[in-house]
Amino acid sequence: IQSKLPGVSTTIFSVMSKLAAEHNAINLSQGFPDYACDPKLVELVNKAMQDGFNQYAPMPGSTFLKETIAEKVEKLYNIKYNPETEITVTAGGTQAIFTALATIINAGDEVIIFEPAYDSYAPTIKLLGGLVKTYELAPPSYAIDWDMVKKLFTAKTRMIILNTPQNPTGSILSSDDMKSLIKLITGTDVLILSDEVYEHLIYDEQKHQSVMLYPELKQRSFIVASFGKLLHATGWKLGYCLAPEKLTKEFRKVHQFNVFSVNSPMQQAIADYIKEPKNYTEIGTFFQQKRDYFRGLLAESRFKLLPCNGSYFQCASYSSISDEKDTDFSMRLIKEFGVATIPVSAFYQKATDHKIIRFCFAKENATLALAAEKLKNV
Amino acid sequence: IQSKLPGVSTTIFSVMSKLAAEHNAINLSQGFPDYACDPKLVELVNKAMQDGFNQYAPMPGSTFLKETIAEKVEKLYNIKYNPETEITVTAGGTQAIFTALATIINAGDEVIIFEPAYDSYAPTIKLLGGLVKTYELAPPSYAIDWDMVKKLFTAKTRMIILNTPQNPTGSILSSDDMKSLIKLITGTDVLILSDEVYEHLIYDEQKHQSVMLYPELKQRSFIVASFGKLLHATGWKLGYCLAPEKLTKEFRKVHQFNVFSVNSPMQQAIADYIKEPKNYTEIGTFFQQKRDYFRGLLAESRFKLLPCNGSYFQCASYSSISDEKDTDFSMRLIKEFGVATIPVSAFYQKATDHKIIRFCFAKENATLALAAEKLKNV
Ligand SMILES: CSCCC(=O)C(=O)O
Ligand SMILES: CSCCC(=O)C(=O)O
Repeated sequence: IQSKLPGVSTTIFSVMSKLAAEHNAINLSQGFPDYACDPKLVELVNKAMQDGFNQYAPMPGSTFLKETIAEKVEKLYNIKYNPETEITVTAGGTQAIFTALATIINAGDEVIIFEPAYDSYAPTIKLLGGLVKTYELAPPSYAIDWDMVKKLFTAKTRMIILNTPQNPTGSILSSDDMKSLIKLITGTDVLILSDEVYEHLIYDEQKHQSVMLYPELKQRSFIVASFGKLLHATGWKLGYCLAPEKLTKEFRKVHQFNVFSVNSPMQQAIADYIKEPKNYTEIGTFFQQKRDYFRGLLAESRFKLLPCNGSYFQCASYSSISDEKDTDFSMRLIKEFGVATIPVSAFYQKATDHKIIRFCFAKENATLALAAEKLKNV
Repeated sequence: IQSKLPGVSTTIFSVMSKLAAEHNAINLSQGFPDYACDPKLVELVNKAMQDGFNQYAPMPGSTFLKETIAEKVEKLYNIKYNPETEITVTAGGTQAIFTALATIINAGDEVIIFEPAYDSYAPTIKLLGGLVKTYELAPPSYAIDWDMVKKLFTAKTRMIILNTPQNPTGSILSSDDMKSLIKLITGTDVLILSDEVYEHLIYDEQKHQSVMLYPELKQRSFIVASFGKLLHATGWKLGYCLAPEKLTKEFRKVHQFNVFSVNSPMQQAIADYIKEPKNYTEIGTFFQQKRDYFRGLLAESRFKLLPCNGSYFQCASYSSISDEKDTDFSMRLIKEFGVATIPVSAFYQKATDHKIIRFCFAKENATLALAAEKLKNV
C-alpha cells in the first residue's frame, strides 16, 4: 500500500524510551514523571469504578468534569467557558490537537508552526492534506520575530499553532508576543490552535500567556490542556479542548467519530480531585524546584544550559564537548554514559545541527542526581 | 467557519440517552450494559494504579496486553497475529475504525459500506475526502446479494467495511458470504475494514466468521475489536486493531499522532483479566439468554421481532401498530411509554421508512421486564 506518511517513522519518544530500557539507561527522554501520582487520586478512580462509572461517558465529556474545568479556568484566568457548549474532554492533549486539525484543515490549507515543535503537528497537518509553513526559532532564546512570521501568511493560511510553555525549548510567549499576534491576525480569518499543556509549569513568577486572556484571540482559538501533565499521570490519557461554541460544535462532530467519548471513571475521579484547587496549585513551584535542582547539578558539567522558563524540559548545548550530530551524540549518551535524552533536531522537519539535546526533569530528585553524576563524566 | 461535516449533528446515541434521562425513561437505546462489570476487573485496575502503571504506555500498546491478545486470538480462532508488529491497542473500537480509515483513505477514494450501519462509518469517510458507496440491506433478513455489491466496485474502490455480528440488525455473515467476498476482491487491491466488536455475541451455536479465518481476506484486513463489549465496561474505551504488518505499520503512524497511546493501568488490568479465558468464554451464552428472555417478553406485545443472530441488539417492526416515521414513533415511545430505543433510519444516510426500531438488551433482566411491561401497552 501507498503510505500517507512516507517520511514518518516511530516517534522519537517511543524510540528513546525503548532504547533507554534496552540499555538500562536513566530515562530523561520522553516527558513523563518517574514518581507516583497522588494516592488520593488513585483512590478516587477506584471509588468511581465501584460507584459504577464504567459505561460510556457523555460524548463531550462528563458534565461534572466539564463544570469543574470551567470553575478551574475561571479561578485561574478569570475567563468564562460554557461547559455545555465550549468544553470537550479528550483522550489526552495529542488527541485534542489531532481533532482540532481534522476539524479545520482541508486539502491545500496552510498551517504555520514554530520549530522546534512537538512532533505531532507537522505530520498531522500533512495527513489531512494541509501544507506546513515553518518558522524556525533559533537558540538560545527561541524568540519570535513577528515581522518574519507575517511573511509566512498567504491567502491560504488557515491556522497557526502556538505552544506556550514550549516543548522542547522551555521558552514562553510574552504579552508582547500576544499583541504582535493580534495585530497579525486582525482582519484575517486565521484560526489558532494553542497547545497549553504545560500551562501550570511556568517559573520565576512569570504569568502564563493563555490566548484566552485576549478576546481577539480567544474567539478564534482551540486551547488544548492536559490532565496527564497536571496530575502526574500521563498514562491516563485525559485532556480537554476549550473553544468558542462555533468551533466546539465542529470539533465535537469530529471527536464523536474519532474516539466518541473518553474514559468514564477517570473523568469522574479527576473532577472530584480538581474540585480542590490545593490539589494542583503547587505544581508550578514543585517543578520550578526540580528545574533549579537539575540546573544546579549540571552547572558542574560541561553542558551549557539554555534558559528554561516553563515546561518539563531543560535544553542544553554540548557544542563545547563534541562535534557530533545530536542524534549520534544522544545515542552515545545512552550507550556510554547511561542517560537517555532527546536530540532537538527531532523537533524539526528539515535537517538541523544546533548541537542541543533535551532533558526531562519531571523525575525524582534521586534520579536527577544520578543522571547528573553520569553527565558530569561527559 | 465552514463545516467539514455540514450534514452531521450529535450522534443518535447521545441524543437518545439524553432524552431517556430527561424523560426518566428506561434506556434501551445506546448500546451499553446497565449492570456492574466484574469487581475482580475493577480490583485489577486498582492494583495496576497502585503498582505504578500511571505513565505513558508504549505507543502501540502494553507488551503484556498485546501478547495476551495474541494468545486469546489464537485460542479462539487458531490464527496467529504477531504482537510486536500486527496488534495495536486503541482507545476503543471507534478510534480504531477512524484511524484505519485515516490511514488508507485519500481524497476521491471510494469505500463500500452496508446500511443500516454504525453511524461513524459514513461521516468519517467523508471527513477524509472519501466517497461512500452504499449497499442497502433490506429487512427482515438483511442478507447481502454479492452480485449487487459487485456493481458498486470501480477503479477507485479502496476499501469495504464489514460488520459481523452487525449493529443495528443483529445479522451475521455466513461462510458463503465470505466466499463470495473472496471472489469479489481477488485480483483487486481493495482493503477490508472488519468491525468485529460483537465477535463474542453470536447465538444458537453459530460460528463467528472473522475475516482472519480466510487467508485471502486476512492479508488485506484491519480487524477491530472492543474490550468495552467483551468486559461490560464500555466507558473504559479500550479496543484493538489486528492487521498484517504492512498495514499495521501505516496504522501506527496515524495512531501515534492521533491519541499517541492508550490508558495504561486499564491495559495492564485487562491483560491480567483476559489471561484467564474463563473470564470471557461465557459471554455468548450470557447474552443469548438475555436475547431469549427479551424476545419471550415481547412475544406478548404487538411488536414484530426480526431475527437476532448476534450483537447487543434486537430489532422490531411496529408497522402493525402505527404509520408514524420511526423517529416520531421512538419519540412517542419515550414520552408516552417511558422506553428509549433507536429508530433504525438513523443508521442510513438517505431517508428510509421501514418502521423498525432497535432495542439494546444488554441490560439487567429486571430492566428488560420493566421495559416489556411498558411496551405491551403500545
Ligand atoms: C506523547 S509522548 C511525548 C511526551 C512529550 O510530550 C514529550 O516527551 O515531548
Ligand atoms: C459509541 S456509542 C454507541 C454504542 C453503540 O455501539 C450503539 O449503541 O450502537
